[in-house]
Amino acid sequence: MKDRLNSLSALAGRMGVDALALVPGPNFTRALGRAFSSHERPFVLVVPAAGRPVAIVPNLELGSWEGTGFDGTVIDWRDQDGYAAAFAELARILPLASLAVEGQVMRVFVHHALKTAMPDCRIVDGEAEISGLRVVKTDADIAALQAAIDISERALSRTLDAVRIGQTEKQVERMLVQALFDEGADDLAFAPIVAAASNSAEPHAHARADYALRPGDPLLIDFGARKDGFAADITRTVFVDHATDDMAEVYDTVLRANLRGHQITRAGITAHEIDDAVTGVLEASRFADRIRTKTGHGLGRDVHEAPYIMRGNPVALAAGTVYTNEPGLYRLGDFGVRIEDDILVTETGCRSLTRFPKAMTLVGRC
Amino acid sequence: MKDRLNSLSALAGRMGVDALALVPGPNFTRALGRAFSSHERPFVLVVPAAGRPVAIVPNLELGSWEGTGFDGTVIDWRDQDGYAAAFAELARILPLASLAVEGQVMRVFVHHALKTAMPDCRIVDGEAEISGLRVVKTDADIAALQAAIDISERALSRTLDAVRIGQTEKQVERMLVQALFDEGADDLAFAPIVAAASNSAEPHAHARADYALRPGDPLLIDFGARKDGFAADITRTVFVDHATDDMAEVYDTVLRANLRGHQITRAGITAHEIDDAVTGVLEASRFADRIRTKTGHGLGRDVHEAPYIMRGNPVALAAGTVYTNEPGLYRLGDFGVRIEDDILVTETGCRSLTRFPKAMTLVGRC
Repeated sequence: MKDRLNSLSALAGRMGVDALALVPGPNFTRALGRAFSSHERPFVLVVPAAGRPVAIVPNLELGSWEGTGFDGTVIDWRDQDGYAAAFAELARILPLASLAVEGQVMRVFVHHALKTAMPDCRIVDGEAEISGLRVVKTDADIAALQAAIDISERALSRTLDAVRIGQTEKQVERMLVQALFDEGADDLAFAPIVAAASNSAEPHAHARADYALRPGDPLLIDFGARKDGFAADITRTVFVDHATDDMAEVYDTVLRANLRGHQITRAGITAHEIDDAVTGVLEASRFADRIRTKTGHGLGRDVHEAPYIMRGNPVALAAGTVYTNEPGLYRLGDFGVRIEDDILVTETGCRSLTRFPKAMTLVGRC
Repeated sequence: MKDRLNSLSALAGRMGVDALALVPGPNFTRALGRAFSSHERPFVLVVPAAGRPVAIVPNLELGSWEGTGFDGTVIDWRDQDGYAAAFAELARILPLASLAVEGQVMRVFVHHALKTAMPDCRIVDGEAEISGLRVVKTDADIAALQAAIDISERALSRTLDAVRIGQTEKQVERMLVQALFDEGADDLAFAPIVAAASNSAEPHAHARADYALRPGDPLLIDFGARKDGFAADITRTVFVDHATDDMAEVYDTVLRANLRGHQITRAGITAHEIDDAVTGVLEASRFADRIRTKTGHGLGRDVHEAPYIMRGNPVALAAGTVYTNEPGLYRLGDFGVRIEDDILVTETGCRSLTRFPKAMTLVGRC
């Protein structure tokens, strides 16, 4: 933990702010080596550029907190007393003129509590910099990601073997969830998408209990296991019994775009360049009007994290970065296809942590 | 949806703000009749006190969004363009001098986007008022809650039947999760707590893969199914093979406190009065130093929502409110006991939606 707190402290210095404030979430877990949740109770770790860190801890979390071996000042507060005094105490111990917070994680009520206690403190969104510390994965991180992905692939394989015409999306979703836990998932990385027919064109579709699979349906499955704090995120689109020629052509186009991403990835390439090349394949096809999304996003403790693989993002990918390569084509009311792999950037190219086959697959034929 | 948007609009008027802004979460789902998620993409529903609502919608969500039948102005934005222009357009269409947001749900990056587009707008935390609209449950809400609770109880029953000495906490957790999905859960309401021995004293303990149950261990299980958008939240503490006299006395004390909560609950009682009475039972015992938490919290679409059942909270409970009655006693390094029921407040008293037995239970004896 000491190293990680030191790296946060150094980051505060580089950012020119007096301190960073972290709340429960991936950065918090990484810094402390242990996962916490917060719900309605403010729970804040403040790491100054210089000096000892301070933590505002809900009293009922103290037992778990002590397990972290945190070497700093702890201000705990109890439900019956409220948390205003704890923030006032923070302001007294650590007078701050500027503070960077995780804009994608911290909620407004904590922001308000900080502002109330430190009305003159300038609070900036340091999400990119703070989460940036975990863009490059360690070997242990990659091993955990690979484990989550392997579990996910075994679960998908079992599920696709069991899909039958006439099952509902919801039934397929349940088979998938059970298989994920059977195969060793700690949790779901996110609520899976199991979407057939026109529902597959909706990128965040919900599985329907009242739609039964029919021959010729595309079936899009976007899912992942969570294991040891790391999340898999994989999409495969298969076809029930058969695919129309139109579907096959769309599928091949998406697959070519996905493969293009693998081809060009190497350390030093920018997020812009990857998206430009991958989306370029889609744009060059006759389905350019079906493009709805960027190519992908970083993956690790968060399902969606930096770097975002999109045009206009000039960040160069370092070796050790893992990102999702997930081109897709969607026509509302008709159908959608997405193929998503989790890719590790290396010095000389890349390695796909996802190894599930991508050749067009027909399911439910027996 | 029209009714719910109108009630939000009326609330903005009562609060004296120009508008309310909702982001994906329970209030958003309730208002729109459909669940959305947002991740790193701002997604905001703005309901003015007067005039048509406006929504900022990520382009890839448009398909699902259209399914809501939303009657207002939609501003969509694409990943490649970013969202700043969408917020500027909101400011142009709907100039706001004041705005109430959900402080427990909205994250700082959305708050910053609003402030950047509307630097002079006063943004206040309207969490209590906005979420307050769903404190009193409809009959349909109660039916969904009861379904989630019934699933949870069947799963707990199966799990306790299968607990054996020598199993790890993690194994018990897996059995519980599988049983929840088998029994029909849409999802877990939250990551379950399965904590034995000294781990039971940590209110948000994580199940250990390296601790095997031993005779005489308390085993605390805090969990719930999610069904049709509603969350169950139940805790039972059982004992492996046998309990010591000390454990039995702690258990009886917690149970008496829990039963006291049932006895005194009726429409009109305040949150303060319930906590005072329930915690009063604990304080009158020789275990008063083991009190760590308030009595409970509201339950519905959120696992933790208003009203918070704690001293100092003067809110009077209306018939139709559902709250958790969950007294507990915890000694760090030793053990903890919690008994948690989900209680529906009625005009004349209350009805426990949780019906799982609370008599001291010994498991793993065969």
